[in-house]
Amino acid sequence: MTEIPSAVDELTTPALLVDESALQSNIETMSSVRPGHSLRPHIKAFKSTALAARLADAGHDIFCCATVTEMEGMAQAGLGTDLLLANEVLDASRLGALTDVARITVAVDSDETLAAAVNAGIKEVLIDLNVGLPRCGCELEDSARLADAARAKGIEVRGVMGYEGHLMDMVDRDKQREGVAVSMAVLAKAHEMVGGDIVSAGGTGTFDINDVATEIQAGSYLLMDTHYAKVGLPFRRALTVLCRVISINTNGNYVVVDGGLKSLAMDHGNPTVDGADVFFCSDEHTTLIPHEGTTWAVGDLVRLWPAHVDPTVAKHERMYVVDGDRVIDAYEIDLRHW
Amino acid sequence: MTEIPSAVDELTTPALLVDESALQSNIETMSSVRPGHSLRPHIKAFKSTALAARLADAGHDIFCCATVTEMEGMAQAGLGTDLLLANEVLDASRLGALTDVARITVAVDSDETLAAAVNAGIKEVLIDLNVGLPRCGCELEDSARLADAARAKGIEVRGVMGYEGHLMDMVDRDKQREGVAVSMAVLAKAHEMVGGDIVSAGGTGTFDINDVATEIQAGSYLLMDTHYAKVGLPFRRALTVLCRVISINTNGNYVVVDGGLKSLAMDHGNPTVDGADVFFCSDEHTTLIPHEGTTWAVGDLVRLWPAHVDPTVAKHERMYVVDGDRVIDAYEIDLRHW
Repeated sequence: MTEIPSAVDELTTPALLVDESALQSNIETMSSVRPGHSLRPHIKAFKSTALAARLADAGHDIFCCATVTEMEGMAQAGLGTDLLLANEVLDASRLGALTDVARITVAVDSDETLAAAVNAGIKEVLIDLNVGLPRCGCELEDSARLADAARAKGIEVRGVMGYEGHLMDMVDRDKQREGVAVSMAVLAKAHEMVGGDIVSAGGTGTFDINDVATEIQAGSYLLMDTHYAKVGLPFRRALTVLCRVISINTNGNYVVVDGGLKSLAMDHGNPTVDGADVFFCSDEHTTLIPHEGTTWAVGDLVRLWPAHVDPTVAKHERMYVVDGDRVIDAYEIDLRHW
Repeated sequence: MTEIPSAVDELTTPALLVDESALQSNIETMSSVRPGHSLRPHIKAFKSTALAARLADAGHDIFCCATVTEMEGMAQAGLGTDLLLANEVLDASRLGALTDVARITVAVDSDETLAAAVNAGIKEVLIDLNVGLPRCGCELEDSARLADAARAKGIEVRGVMGYEGHLMDMVDRDKQREGVAVSMAVLAKAHEMVGGDIVSAGGTGTFDINDVATEIQAGSYLLMDTHYAKVGLPFRRALTVLCRVISINTNGNYVVVDGGLKSLAMDHGNPTVDGADVFFCSDEHTTLIPHEGTTWAVGDLVRLWPAHVDPTVAKHERMYVVDGDRVIDAYEIDLRHW
């Protein structure tokens, strides 16, 4: 890795910054509610073995992943105590190759994904249930059959998983509780039929109200974003994209910074910024309309708050851990791509 | 690089595919209207020196870039005949270091960006004009002053640039012509005042109607996307994201494929797919509602058409060049990050 500058203003922009104090606060807040193995941190939100190691040190040394590359990287980094691919995969051969160095469990929701696990020499699975989000997961009536089919092939069925992703960003927590109860009733019923020790579910938005899950699959809570921040969770926004003012138009009263679509995820909309409105983003630019009282000069640093943490992180090679204007560490984002 | 599979169905998904026949057609269509140096291909759209070399072979061996990393990579790849950073930069030291091996020109729109060029030992600049897009570029009345300031520092002013980006995706070409005329009148006036040989402007959407520019800065035309395709340009869509069906829900009649927000740019909206509607994208998934008559099985390959080419390419390590179901080449996307 290139040498890490010690001051934020020495960084090449755009750069991904993580506020150490907010990060540490988020780790502690989550651990107080979900200690040890009642949390299975989701790697997809930060894609960094260095950050994962920090969670392992905090007692959370079991993880879930969304991609085979994330699983491989975690195993290779010695973080393979208990890795769950919380996603379906048709070619599991690269996962099978990891079973000597890590405990590997994969989600299955069909005969085809079960066959992929069997063919790859995977020894353990979870049955993935559809609990209301229109994505992966088998139907309740199919879960026991699939578990039986797995056991008939000599595979250990560790339990069930089901992600209530459609309920993550609800502001009305009473309605959210009702929704979670409906979703988790399906998962609890499946668990009765399937057996095993694990009921893996939940996420940052339901970390404290999902009382059916034996382990919560949360990842976004660590770094947070403006979308999740609207929900009113007890986690602090730790992630910004550091940019520089590269152009100022005095006629139009707008300011242009050097980060845009290629450094910020846009699926949840524009980033936000303190002291200005975001006019629009293009590939390598964001045009800002400063509020009255905000004065920026060409060359000034500006921190943008991204709307969605996971795909924003995936655009960068590393995140710089900062304490105010000091860079105190850097974590490689080493689990990208597929 | 890992060995390239010879068949599309051997690729790890998601994977970026480029259709060779569409790519070659786009190169030829553009060259017939903008031969040789009347086109300055924009590297930001594809971020690959291999693809740039192909354009150089087709007679377009002058390029523009949006980032310092793009400039560095092009120079190091021996493609530095005439490289323009068509963007503002405050720390040009890495560019200054390239002047021994490449011809380096940078855009300047302020005293600060001019000072950065001077400090870095850059020898040549273009004056960047605001021609209507609320982004970088100085005002007309400031352009001659800035050119004089540059020349007073011993810097060669090669001319002017101005990007009419607000007019790129207009469907009504008569209205677009009117808009381009207004924007280019500003640039032509600036050129009179500033001098130099170059009037650099335009893009894929105005490649054939901008008759003021001496060179067109187009890049998206090579690979195209669904957004540009709506405009009715003579370029073919060459870019898809190859995915696999990983889950099928027969109750909900939807199909889940293994590419989503992390492999597709979402700033111009959802991708599209032949034979189905896109329901929604999440990090590593897209949920599709198949049209009547579309039958997919778990494991089938599906090609998604991204809505915006530039930031989609930037998410991937390489693009596979394909002829139908055969992989015939692979281009590293080696100009990513900053």
